[in-house]
Amino acid sequence: MTNLEEMGQKAQSAAFELGQLGTQAKNSALLAMANTLVMNTDKIIAANKDDMTNARNNGMKDAMLDRLEITPSRINDMADGLRQVMDLPDPIGKIERGWQTDAGLDITQERVPLGVIGMIYEARPNVTVDAAGLCFKAGNAVILRGGKEAINSNIILSETLREALKTIGINEDAIQLIDDISHETAQKMMEMTDYIDVLIPRGSGKFIKMVVDKAKVPIIETGAGNCHIYVDKDADLDKALKIIINAKVQRPSVCNAAEKVVLHKDIANQFLPELFDALRANNVEVRGDKLSQIIEPGIIPATPEDWGTEYDDYIMAVKIVGSIDEAIAHINKYNTKHSEAIITENYTSSRQFMKQIDAAVVYTNASTRFTDGQQFGFGAEIGISTQKLHARGPMGANELTTTKYLVQGDGQVRK
Amino acid sequence: MTNLEEMGQKAQSAAFELGQLGTQAKNSALLAMANTLVMNTDKIIAANKDDMTNARNNGMKDAMLDRLEITPSRINDMADGLRQVMDLPDPIGKIERGWQTDAGLDITQERVPLGVIGMIYEARPNVTVDAAGLCFKAGNAVILRGGKEAINSNIILSETLREALKTIGINEDAIQLIDDISHETAQKMMEMTDYIDVLIPRGSGKFIKMVVDKAKVPIIETGAGNCHIYVDKDADLDKALKIIINAKVQRPSVCNAAEKVVLHKDIANQFLPELFDALRANNVEVRGDKLSQIIEPGIIPATPEDWGTEYDDYIMAVKIVGSIDEAIAHINKYNTKHSEAIITENYTSSRQFMKQIDAAVVYTNASTRFTDGQQFGFGAEIGISTQKLHARGPMGANELTTTKYLVQGDGQVRK
Repeated sequence: MTNLEEMGQKAQSAAFELGQLGTQAKNSALLAMANTLVMNTDKIIAANKDDMTNARNNGMKDAMLDRLEITPSRINDMADGLRQVMDLPDPIGKIERGWQTDAGLDITQERVPLGVIGMIYEARPNVTVDAAGLCFKAGNAVILRGGKEAINSNIILSETLREALKTIGINEDAIQLIDDISHETAQKMMEMTDYIDVLIPRGSGKFIKMVVDKAKVPIIETGAGNCHIYVDKDADLDKALKIIINAKVQRPSVCNAAEKVVLHKDIANQFLPELFDALRANNVEVRGDKLSQIIEPGIIPATPEDWGTEYDDYIMAVKIVGSIDEAIAHINKYNTKHSEAIITENYTSSRQFMKQIDAAVVYTNASTRFTDGQQFGFGAEIGISTQKLHARGPMGANELTTTKYLVQGDGQVRK
Repeated sequence: MTNLEEMGQKAQSAAFELGQLGTQAKNSALLAMANTLVMNTDKIIAANKDDMTNARNNGMKDAMLDRLEITPSRINDMADGLRQVMDLPDPIGKIERGWQTDAGLDITQERVPLGVIGMIYEARPNVTVDAAGLCFKAGNAVILRGGKEAINSNIILSETLREALKTIGINEDAIQLIDDISHETAQKMMEMTDYIDVLIPRGSGKFIKMVVDKAKVPIIETGAGNCHIYVDKDADLDKALKIIINAKVQRPSVCNAAEKVVLHKDIANQFLPELFDALRANNVEVRGDKLSQIIEPGIIPATPEDWGTEYDDYIMAVKIVGSIDEAIAHINKYNTKHSEAIITENYTSSRQFMKQIDAAVVYTNASTRFTDGQQFGFGAEIGISTQKLHARGPMGANELTTTKYLVQGDGQVRK
């Protein structure tokens, strides 16, 4: 069994060294990682082939196989991702604020790394590279624990990144992978409060719930997205249709895809048949409440469970409401606090919705699919936080930091 | 048994209403709370007498009895505290940043309340009022769970605050107290992830550890303080003595009191006997490593457990080191990441210590006792965070908030 204690100690030593590195040194390391990845293309693809073969033998579905597969072009994408992270501003060392106290102490609040970040994730091996790069940029050591399906790929990818660090003289324990994929080791990792400052799970909603339930290390919860689009009585219905189709169909498997449509009753008669046809034309199964079934008999009855379910699939449920207040109450009850949108031309409705919806990101007249680090302009993201503590919404390098107060005095004592 | 589910639902409804209140309405409520407290002085003191009688019968020590007691002057202090919170700037509604994306979306990041805060704490009944006031100022509903020793005081205090809210037409469920003091109820509260956004424990180190271990709700860890003062070879020894005595003796029971002195060997021979005498004159028991016992034979041998122990008492342990690097390594190994100080006149030593020590607050030439919301100028504090997630150091109203992104578009869809 992997010696997690020893990994934790090595990570802390590496984090201490990383915390003292300047921006240029970190950027050189990121560039070296990118170049070494590309140089190791053949080795990486060979290891990935083993994972692909095992996965096929275990009957993995095509969509999942596609996520697992590494190609030369995907290695170039990972390398480009690292180069983009290199180009991001360094969040470390920024003075957030500063002031002098009544006692004559000068206080500054400075941005510093979190320390050691634990990443625990499912299948896609590119998370190994993306997470390592972003954690490194923010001066953190990372302990990675990926899914068993991608273990061979993850080992070669993390070894490649460590090789790059070693070459330019940086402690390679800044990036460590737990290569023991047993559940016991995962459980131990989630309890390592002495060594890991924060744990970030990435994967399905079920996976994240499991981690939240079992971990003792503080967590940033990411990615559960039961996102709604509310079509107001004063909506531009062309915009509404375009946005709903985009939010549902453009990439149904991701957390910022819309799962529910809430319709104001005044526009339901006109809009629902049109929406139903467009969704059906895009192979989306449409479920709905009683009223929606009366308007459009092709709609499948929704069960009470539907309202709280994230489908991540070609399924969408429709709820008809009598007022914007009812829409807001419904959304605040069932949403996962990820991304919610109103479609309206009415100023007051927009303002009310934006103020009263409790979610990381609230939209007027735009697709929920924009909740994304790249789209927000953060350059890269480690995930989308759906909790309120520490970070909310897309998390870039800045969200992988904390602060400390530096206090300068001349011998002051407390009275 | 208390219906926690129902309390949680009420708290969420109240939080929704509170989130829509303006600054003036919140300030009027805080003023009403302060005035109602003073008006209810007799009732509060009568209830507190019951707690005091029970505590005496149960053999509570005098120091603890003093913390439990409520006097008219202490009620005035609580009321003044609420008035001070009223005068603080309202953190809610502040735009932290805003920009336009490539897709033409306008994004603003706005400060919003956390929602529902759970406070779980030990004996002192004034926490009931302080916590309720600060949570309220930041637009949060609070669920309070105090210690069994103060239960009668806590009930009357929370009823008084609720009465004040009711009088001015604000949902009184913004402040709720769990009056069932069973362990089962506390455990259930700590698992209420559906209703409580963040749990803040206040009390002894042992108590906080218990909460961290048992809670499923995200926690802000507060208050463990194994604080060090490092006396550098280039220290002004007069400043060092004054600061150490202040940090140890001025109020030994609190988390920002110093517990350890780390001495550079070059000044140990001269400084330690002087320090030993001064500590002894202040009734402080001095423990130390081998070298310190050789220099000052009155020193009691420290055990390995001493280095990681927060005494909160008239005890101090001394460690002698050969270099500032050794001092930093020792402190980073044993500290609780609360407050650490260097005493030096050397610019480079100060800079190195400030950069390399991992703690919420790092001092040069000042007492660790300044780590405090009032001393920092935050006006009031809900505790001192010793974790790195969300908030670090003294937490005022601003730290009881989160943000949400508001995105305005014209029909944008993702390509």
